[in-house]
Amino acid sequence: MTAVDGLPFLRACRREPTDFTPIWLMRQAGRYLPEYRDLRARHGFLDLCKTPDAAAEITLQPVRRLGVDAAILFADILLPLEAMGAELVFAAGDGPVFPHPVRSREAAAALTPLDDAAAEERLGHVYEALRRVRRALAGRVPVIGFGGTPWTLASYLVEGGGSKQFAHLLGWSYRDPEGLALLLDRLADTSLAYLRGQLRAGAQAIQLFDTWGGILDQERYERLAVPPVLKILRGLRAAAPDRPIIYYLHGGSHLLPALARLPVDVLSVDWRLPLSTVRRALAAAGSGIGVLQGNLDPAALLAPIPEIERRVVELLAEGSGGGHVVNLGHGILPTTPVENARAFVECAQRLSASVPAAAR
Amino acid sequence: MTAVDGLPFLRACRREPTDFTPIWLMRQAGRYLPEYRDLRARHGFLDLCKTPDAAAEITLQPVRRLGVDAAILFADILLPLEAMGAELVFAAGDGPVFPHPVRSREAAAALTPLDDAAAEERLGHVYEALRRVRRALAGRVPVIGFGGTPWTLASYLVEGGGSKQFAHLLGWSYRDPEGLALLLDRLADTSLAYLRGQLRAGAQAIQLFDTWGGILDQERYERLAVPPVLKILRGLRAAAPDRPIIYYLHGGSHLLPALARLPVDVLSVDWRLPLSTVRRALAAAGSGIGVLQGNLDPAALLAPIPEIERRVVELLAEGSGGGHVVNLGHGILPTTPVENARAFVECAQRLSASVPAAAR
Repeated sequence: MTAVDGLPFLRACRREPTDFTPIWLMRQAGRYLPEYRDLRARHGFLDLCKTPDAAAEITLQPVRRLGVDAAILFADILLPLEAMGAELVFAAGDGPVFPHPVRSREAAAALTPLDDAAAEERLGHVYEALRRVRRALAGRVPVIGFGGTPWTLASYLVEGGGSKQFAHLLGWSYRDPEGLALLLDRLADTSLAYLRGQLRAGAQAIQLFDTWGGILDQERYERLAVPPVLKILRGLRAAAPDRPIIYYLHGGSHLLPALARLPVDVLSVDWRLPLSTVRRALAAAGSGIGVLQGNLDPAALLAPIPEIERRVVELLAEGSGGGHVVNLGHGILPTTPVENARAFVECAQRLSASVPAAAR
Repeated sequence: MTAVDGLPFLRACRREPTDFTPIWLMRQAGRYLPEYRDLRARHGFLDLCKTPDAAAEITLQPVRRLGVDAAILFADILLPLEAMGAELVFAAGDGPVFPHPVRSREAAAALTPLDDAAAEERLGHVYEALRRVRRALAGRVPVIGFGGTPWTLASYLVEGGGSKQFAHLLGWSYRDPEGLALLLDRLADTSLAYLRGQLRAGAQAIQLFDTWGGILDQERYERLAVPPVLKILRGLRAAAPDRPIIYYLHGGSHLLPALARLPVDVLSVDWRLPLSTVRRALAAAGSGIGVLQGNLDPAALLAPIPEIERRVVELLAEGSGGGHVVNLGHGILPTTPVENARAFVECAQRLSASVPAAAR
């Protein structure tokens, strides 16, 4: 355990001093990398997710290319929904599609939550990929497991794919909040089983992605989205009290008082608010969360490298005064030049190393 | 002028006492209405926008059906871009498409801003529709003119249509902010000419729609999005100092300190923050904006009518303590039952009328 415990990313998540501010990038295993596009040209997206060798290789690509301080498993947040029996299709150019969306209490009740055994059976390929990544990394950098929050998983399952207005999901939430809560609770049970399996397979931290929680106001967020999240968080803490948990929310500037109360180690935020403002809001709400992750706008990596460096200086200054893991505020854009991503990582590591830990 | 000045919607925009809290709905002229779908089945969307008789008829439909306290011109925010020479296509089911997106300083410089004469020539159909609406309404309710903000117009023109990530627009903003500012300034000149024409044609208030400003952090919002807006606002004030100006921003909870400084009469917000929180934030920022518009989640209109009524009670309470125009937080959803929209309008008017103006 001591070698693992010594890794800068894990130390930073626990708010322990590090020699520099660690960095990784959301969606770092993905389309901006030519070696990923090579594989993708020959295989379907879900095939890559479900083939442990391929998923492990893709997970490792950005570690080699960018020198990031953590790997994150290559997988899709929707895999556990498919494992529950929901048909899932990735149509070319269209993103994920659920041909049979779940839009009623009856349809929700017909979904059986995964337990640990079913998760092993149906999502064992994910766990095998994780074990291969751990072996290949040999303790050099840790690997992060992840899942979507029930609300975000539901957004795809209820809408039948991506959405702009979420009319089915939100309509359901006003029409029959108890029925939707039943679905969310089943998704929490499934997610917990899935993430516990990732921990057993060696995930050294867990990130929960709440991509669509920000469409709710705070009262409804706390009533609908938070309870199933708390169920997952309690289960993860019981399973592995020492593994950091990171909560990512996109577009949730208005939800900070609610987020402040989540029992997580790290809050990962988008670029809309400066980190110093987020930190002040958490402190004002009496939050126990001492570490922020983020939050460069992914589009900033489309700028010339000197401009990226200038923004890294600002970002490190914003992140100071508390724990900080450098990251983007959302997934890296497919059009990002690899050399720009590399410059972001290198610059963040180098500049932060020149400042004593106590001053960061 | 006195009859017009006496209309509850216009009085409320000026923070003058009214007998009840006036209400209208964003996108109230649209697909949830069977009489609109009837017309749309027989005519293309742009054809309807460009035919004064049709546009006037569609503008009047929700006034008849719902009894709202203001009409809003039926038009598309992208019409002035087409009038500047940008080819615009509405492909079936795909929304607006600009086949030749503007993504460089050169392409921006090649666009000629509309002046008043060019706006009259190319967008005269909009002005004619407005005049017909004014005549048909005969002073019973006022008609609102509108336009998109330069940032929001640019989001479509630069991306080539709708977008989820706005990678071209945001990438440009980091790579060459001065070049993008040039485009935004031309869009401001065009918008001002277009909106001045609407005022001349009889628009009794103007709403600016900033649908995508919320993707910027505050510093960049103030640097890029606000200057062209101020240019428009100054021009509108000079042209018609007495006509209320409403600013609508979607997803802008993090931008309230910047919005507080806009010289507008009414701030229209989405449902993410309660109106009381918005009002406190404006006051804390020393804002001169005394009237809020909004902010029911459009999806709430998919709930049963008793639930809608319960939410109207809450909304009126939230809106009290300052000027309030009831509205949705975003456009009405196409799947909204007409009777639910009607119940929202009727309930807001009836319940607010039972409370003395001084207590609202």
